[in-house]
Amino acid sequence: MTDLFDTTLARIRPVDQSAIAAATERQDQLTKVPGSLGQLEVVGIRLAGIAGQCPPPVPQQAVVGVFAGDHGVHAQGVSPWPQEITVGMLVNMAQGGAAINVLSRQMGVRTVLTDVGVAGDYPDSPAIRRRRVRPGTADFSVEAAMTRDEALQALVVGIETGLETIEQGADCLMTGEMGIGNTSPASTLIAVTTGSEVAEVTGRGAGSDDEMLARKTQVLQRALDLHQPSADDPVGLLAAVGGLEHAALTGFILAGAAAGVPVVLDGVIACSAACVAVALNPEVKGYLVAGHAGVEPGIRRALEHLGLTALVDLDLRLGEGTGAVLAWPMVQASARILSEMATFAEAGLG
Amino acid sequence: MTDLFDTTLARIRPVDQSAIAAATERQDQLTKVPGSLGQLEVVGIRLAGIAGQCPPPVPQQAVVGVFAGDHGVHAQGVSPWPQEITVGMLVNMAQGGAAINVLSRQMGVRTVLTDVGVAGDYPDSPAIRRRRVRPGTADFSVEAAMTRDEALQALVVGIETGLETIEQGADCLMTGEMGIGNTSPASTLIAVTTGSEVAEVTGRGAGSDDEMLARKTQVLQRALDLHQPSADDPVGLLAAVGGLEHAALTGFILAGAAAGVPVVLDGVIACSAACVAVALNPEVKGYLVAGHAGVEPGIRRALEHLGLTALVDLDLRLGEGTGAVLAWPMVQASARILSEMATFAEAGLG
Repeated sequence: MTDLFDTTLARIRPVDQSAIAAATERQDQLTKVPGSLGQLEVVGIRLAGIAGQCPPPVPQQAVVGVFAGDHGVHAQGVSPWPQEITVGMLVNMAQGGAAINVLSRQMGVRTVLTDVGVAGDYPDSPAIRRRRVRPGTADFSVEAAMTRDEALQALVVGIETGLETIEQGADCLMTGEMGIGNTSPASTLIAVTTGSEVAEVTGRGAGSDDEMLARKTQVLQRALDLHQPSADDPVGLLAAVGGLEHAALTGFILAGAAAGVPVVLDGVIACSAACVAVALNPEVKGYLVAGHAGVEPGIRRALEHLGLTALVDLDLRLGEGTGAVLAWPMVQASARILSEMATFAEAGLG
Repeated sequence: MTDLFDTTLARIRPVDQSAIAAATERQDQLTKVPGSLGQLEVVGIRLAGIAGQCPPPVPQQAVVGVFAGDHGVHAQGVSPWPQEITVGMLVNMAQGGAAINVLSRQMGVRTVLTDVGVAGDYPDSPAIRRRRVRPGTADFSVEAAMTRDEALQALVVGIETGLETIEQGADCLMTGEMGIGNTSPASTLIAVTTGSEVAEVTGRGAGSDDEMLARKTQVLQRALDLHQPSADDPVGLLAAVGGLEHAALTGFILAGAAAGVPVVLDGVIACSAACVAVALNPEVKGYLVAGHAGVEPGIRRALEHLGLTALVDLDLRLGEGTGAVLAWPMVQASARILSEMATFAEAGLG
């Protein structure tokens, strides 16, 4: 099992700088004011680097991997929602009624649901892959969220999910998640990997008020004081103050980078997983695209750390993968621009 | 001709407040944190008001109306690009090589090109509708851009284009344009309709430097001092300091509102036309959706005046309709959310 983790990490290659240079040059030859397509130009250049060719092929099939988990730290009152919502929403997603389902249908993205650590029970469904490592994490404000071995197991669930979907034809991965309380481990992971104060990167999640936000920040600081996790040991960091879906998403991102396909990030949970993936292998950075900016303060800090600007900013604060899926047509468009726009010379305007 | 203008203005009905109330209530019953889908919720509610029902139907066919024109004020050195680029880019669009073509193909939007006032010649093309009112405006820093009658003719070109495309099946209109120098009339129109200083709403357009921006602002101020146009006479305003594509877009927007379909705005040219349309009939406001935020300062001021928040913000500064077309899947998604997401009660989470 750790074999797959090690080989995946070792497979990740730097993105292709000569394709990046060629795409950068081509952007200025196309019939538009240089730079006037803004972030679409940036992402197109990135796709060229990932594909190792200019123009890059237009990605055709995106899969959003939604990983669900529960969180022991929920007991500390860090979310206004009962924990049972996690399993309830997972079932809702399996039935196609959640926002991520509707947006995925609209954007032509396939949804893959994985239970990597939900606490509650639910009837079997062909739409839910049961890969539960444990029924929710332990309360990391008093003990480690999980063992190192469990963190590795969750990482491998993510890697396998990513590699399987790529084998089935996906040429773009998108991150999704469901887990009441999961902005708390996102904050601790971002604080440690970016070297930030926990207060700087902690927000209201799905609706905390002022008092709850203050408590959440205190609880997270206590956890960091207790475990003293370090970005130099990313697996230990996930085990100490992470979440099962955060670990799985980290693996999912690693799989994308290893297979050479772009990975589009959703909100703060995905950003935290991306920061851990980059701590494991800095070359991962070149494979990332930021879907949504979001309102969580941790996102801003993480995107800065990752050198990314988000494609979508709709004041979303739902997660699930919604912000990544919404960016899909833009990701495709950014590649199409490089292959289908006329140059000034071709248009007789040179 | 003015008959069509008058009857179109008279056809515009207020959007349906009871459908808006029903959609607002429904957003909070869907399986998500209330408000967590941000601008998608706002636009979904708006579509309900336009359609007069909740949930609103998902719009199926968008048409971007691209209107091209030239500008006499170009002689004052307000753009770094030669005027011939207008006709060159119109031909490029007819051949499918411009950014608007690529993005329209990606997003599934139909492009309709109309020459409403280009100065140069080009070979006939089935892709370009010749509806030229005059070969470019006069230099409005020394005389009126056009006569009142010409402004009305251009308005009618836009109205007819909008009504024809709707008759052919479009249930969403998007604004597009091409015209070297056309951010200048956009600034004057926005300054007058929003009661702003011209310096506040004038930007670099497609690449002006500091010196050119200072000159542009001076030239525009001189034009306003000369003509003293007023928002109380929107047709006179268009004639004095507008542009032919600005007038046509105003008519296109009026057609959408009159026929009860949403109109998605692109950048600063579209925003200026929308401000004029709202000056003609304030009920137009309810039919507008802001596609792209853009970097032109006039956009911010105009969107504030129109009460809109943009769906896309990719640092675009190209125009053509690109920012509207990119928002199309989000407009569709906003309606789908209201019709396809499960409520908490339906998901057994109530």
